[in-house]
Amino acid sequence: MNPTQRIEQTLSAALSGTELPGGPPRLAAAVRRAVFPGGARVRPRLCVAVALACGDSDPGLSNAAAASIELLHCASLVHDDLPCFDDAATRRGLPTVHVEFGERLAILAGDALIVLAFQVLGAANPAQAARLPTVLGLIARGVGQPHGIVAGQAWECEPQLSLRDYQRAKTGALFSAATMAGAAAAGAPCEPWCALGEWLGEAYQVADDIRDVLADPALLGKPTGRDQALGRPSAAATHGLLGAVEHFHSLIQNAADAVPDCRGDRQLRALVRAESERLVPAAWCDQLARNAA
Amino acid sequence: MNPTQRIEQTLSAALSGTELPGGPPRLAAAVRRAVFPGGARVRPRLCVAVALACGDSDPGLSNAAAASIELLHCASLVHDDLPCFDDAATRRGLPTVHVEFGERLAILAGDALIVLAFQVLGAANPAQAARLPTVLGLIARGVGQPHGIVAGQAWECEPQLSLRDYQRAKTGALFSAATMAGAAAAGAPCEPWCALGEWLGEAYQVADDIRDVLADPALLGKPTGRDQALGRPSAAATHGLLGAVEHFHSLIQNAADAVPDCRGDRQLRALVRAESERLVPAAWCDQLARNAA
Repeated sequence: MNPTQRIEQTLSAALSGTELPGGPPRLAAAVRRAVFPGGARVRPRLCVAVALACGDSDPGLSNAAAASIELLHCASLVHDDLPCFDDAATRRGLPTVHVEFGERLAILAGDALIVLAFQVLGAANPAQAARLPTVLGLIARGVGQPHGIVAGQAWECEPQLSLRDYQRAKTGALFSAATMAGAAAAGAPCEPWCALGEWLGEAYQVADDIRDVLADPALLGKPTGRDQALGRPSAAATHGLLGAVEHFHSLIQNAADAVPDCRGDRQLRALVRAESERLVPAAWCDQLARNAA
Repeated sequence: MNPTQRIEQTLSAALSGTELPGGPPRLAAAVRRAVFPGGARVRPRLCVAVALACGDSDPGLSNAAAASIELLHCASLVHDDLPCFDDAATRRGLPTVHVEFGERLAILAGDALIVLAFQVLGAANPAQAARLPTVLGLIARGVGQPHGIVAGQAWECEPQLSLRDYQRAKTGALFSAATMAGAAAAGAPCEPWCALGEWLGEAYQVADDIRDVLADPALLGKPTGRDQALGRPSAAATHGLLGAVEHFHSLIQNAADAVPDCRGDRQLRALVRAESERLVPAAWCDQLARNAA
């Protein structure tokens, strides 16, 4: 199985396990909507790619880690889309969970997804039991307080915002959790993999800002122009569009340079470059340069 | 240390670990408010009591399980109190989290508490590594889909409600998670402990209905009369107050009878009776009987 199949199958099995008789059916439908159809599955693909680069000696655990991270990402999207945060109407080309199922089920679906993320880890049955608490700890750190994605979202509620802390927590934390958990699931030391996740997280944040200005809403599956409308900090606003694109490419270069020596380092660098092209296509950059000339 | 000290110390250490520099301070304050001052800590005390009755061979793990269950309970209170659910203004004698910190931080505090609950388990460092996934699985099952407390709350969003499924999930699930996780943390089989948790959960639900009618709001730390105001199903409405009290006592008797044979069974039965008196004091019952005569 390729990484995408591994991830989709693990997510699918996780959801099926919660859809047993006797549960509330609309909650089950809301949870399913939050996970399928999926987005780009960037974080779980990164997790599996790092595990493979490190030998992937326990695929059951790396699959569980990848699915756990994606479930937590989906939970954060459902809660971030709520009326009291971004008040978003569409996501992945469909109505958001609260628009379709109501605010109460959106809150509960997010809660259920967080629980499921850890349940999937607990059920991974690793060959070496000591790897489980390490992987769990890395993932929890990427999500919780004080530096995970929940903390990142909470910076939006502070009277004074540290932009660096905000962006590192809101995006970078789950990317570095993905790289480090992938390594730990394969029994490799996780610290050398932190920088790759951090650079990619920062690059992804800048790409998101660029795409919010440039991309076709139909392509993104969500409205564009939201950063400006909500007055959110944005690399495109700070650096100008061309400056933001240059900044993005330097972050991608840093990410590629941060891949530690390992048996799969070449494939990983190729993945980083492919993500770069997927996020900010060269054709956009050419067009921007022509417009500027 | 007595069980209460063990629980408070574990909760306190868990929160301190998330209050490191660089995190958003208002989220940290909202999370702290959700956990301290505490309520009766019924579920974690039950968890530790069962662990002790089973020999408590790994106090670090039983403490972690107890704290995890209490953090999940606190998370559910914060989310249940939100305007779109119970719209509660006070809890434990203080303004609810969303009243004090706003709806956004209340949602995020609940999320952070769920993550922290599993992080505490992951950091427990059990002497026997295989106990961790068992305890984690039992606790996740008590919270998530399809039969945990999140599913219980979601029954309120269904057009057709199974009262039995609703109450078992909303209250019973975390009680049986507490008894079973306590046993599993001590290395004992967990299944024999399920019934005790279920009976106590049901008794607690009925006691809550009785207290909603009878208790002094200042004593409860939250408003009374909410079931009637919100049109919620209530044992007091179904059986009448005296009938509800009789039903409560029969559930308590079932709980005491369900304590499995073990070295601490006498202390556990004494605990069940003490909880009964705390929840529905004999003085109330005498007064009700006199009023009815």
